[in-house]
Amino acid sequence: MTAHRAGATPVRVHVIEPAARVARDDLVAIEEPLEIRVAAAGGGEARTVALTMRTPGADFELAAGFLHTEGVVADRAAVRRIDYCSDAGDQRYNVVTVRLASPDLPELASLDRYGTVSSACGVCGKTSLDALELRASSLPSGHPRIDPDVLHSLPAALRQAQRTFSATGGLHAAGVFTATGDTMAVREDVGRHNAVDKVVGWALLKGVPVGEAVLVVSGRAGFEIVQKAVAARIPVVCAVSAPSSLAVDVATRFDVTLVGFLRDRRANVYAGADRIG
Amino acid sequence: MTAHRAGATPVRVHVIEPAARVARDDLVAIEEPLEIRVAAAGGGEARTVALTMRTPGADFELAAGFLHTEGVVADRAAVRRIDYCSDAGDQRYNVVTVRLASPDLPELASLDRYGTVSSACGVCGKTSLDALELRASSLPSGHPRIDPDVLHSLPAALRQAQRTFSATGGLHAAGVFTATGDTMAVREDVGRHNAVDKVVGWALLKGVPVGEAVLVVSGRAGFEIVQKAVAARIPVVCAVSAPSSLAVDVATRFDVTLVGFLRDRRANVYAGADRIG
Repeated sequence: MTAHRAGATPVRVHVIEPAARVARDDLVAIEEPLEIRVAAAGGGEARTVALTMRTPGADFELAAGFLHTEGVVADRAAVRRIDYCSDAGDQRYNVVTVRLASPDLPELASLDRYGTVSSACGVCGKTSLDALELRASSLPSGHPRIDPDVLHSLPAALRQAQRTFSATGGLHAAGVFTATGDTMAVREDVGRHNAVDKVVGWALLKGVPVGEAVLVVSGRAGFEIVQKAVAARIPVVCAVSAPSSLAVDVATRFDVTLVGFLRDRRANVYAGADRIG
Repeated sequence: MTAHRAGATPVRVHVIEPAARVARDDLVAIEEPLEIRVAAAGGGEARTVALTMRTPGADFELAAGFLHTEGVVADRAAVRRIDYCSDAGDQRYNVVTVRLASPDLPELASLDRYGTVSSACGVCGKTSLDALELRASSLPSGHPRIDPDVLHSLPAALRQAQRTFSATGGLHAAGVFTATGDTMAVREDVGRHNAVDKVVGWALLKGVPVGEAVLVVSGRAGFEIVQKAVAARIPVVCAVSAPSSLAVDVATRFDVTLVGFLRDRRANVYAGADRIG
């Protein structure tokens, strides 16, 4: 297994072109479920909080980043240890338990977003923004400043890091960069939100501050991506492709700089343009 | 609101290029939450089964398609009616209730995939495939046959339908086509799985059979997309971009034809190649 094949697995493919039909070997991005559990320091049963389809690798970072962006884990000190589930048989490496430093499990209701719960009318809609507002405040305005040349350099830096990982065309990438354009960390995944959780979890577990960092994602930026930036306190989010309306709303409300269509030496700034220049 | 702006909303954007920095109007894809509820025919409280970030439009199709691909709604007759939630205030159009023909609510545990539930080790992993196997069987082998020329015509047909909807660059598309390449329905959404649910729901609510149809998605094909095709009994899935390993596994296991990188008159067939030719 060479470095550029990480996250990929070989398959047999029939290539159909007008003039030919040939069978050959190909690589596809690996997608497997990861179950994330949390447990209190005092022992007791672990609780499943998420089942996500992800590309194996950086699983502990993914779990830590997910719990951080969901507000369960505030900082490195809140995590006692992270392990694969030793009694999950052949699924061992698809189940991760995060043991907290806290003696009790925190309130996990906010993670119930996708569950089958009975509820009163009006639970959704504005609620997504309101729920975020309950646990997050706006980011410090106008800081850091990003030079447009730095901005334009980021997609190539992200692609460069991706090239060293895989060649499947099937993986999203997320990277954190310094305000002067240096690569801090890049992670890949079949799910863009997972790639973001991985870089956020990397920073959390390493104790690296991201309060002046720039988050770059390879594709589009929807609500979930900007929400994770707000929760992780990353002030600048750049997407190579389009943002959604709710991504713009969240960025505006929490004073996150949101850049879209960052490619070909062009950038569309949808919110927080005062940080660019 | 002209037709090509459906699903899009205007925003102000600062465009930063090496030689200029100008503010201008732009369009972004609309993303808003949709809460899907089910209720039994006999009355009683509706139960929330999903909260998804979607592009408004075709909401009833989305709800019906989601419930169909999740195994809750078997056919058109299982749905008594679908309404927006009249008592949800300004969120009225973000809450949809599907009233079933059945006097009782079905078992909804299978929808609990993302909930916060305590569970034994090994719940995930193979379980995703096993759960699908419990409610779905393989599709009829070798049928229908798709001419490679038809295959190569599908991405342009999908793009053509997309052009009439929006110009944000931020919407995924899914379409169902006949085995001879005629467009049955195309829907767009910020979420690719939602776009698939919308075309599946369109077919269900219209009573249009899809047992010989081809599903085409604008981007990548992961587990979720192929799983929905299996549940909706659509025998051929084409993606303009890459499939994931689990998508290939599911397609192989349920005898779905899976085509990836369908573009530039080329097609990579990862499973069910006997249907092509």
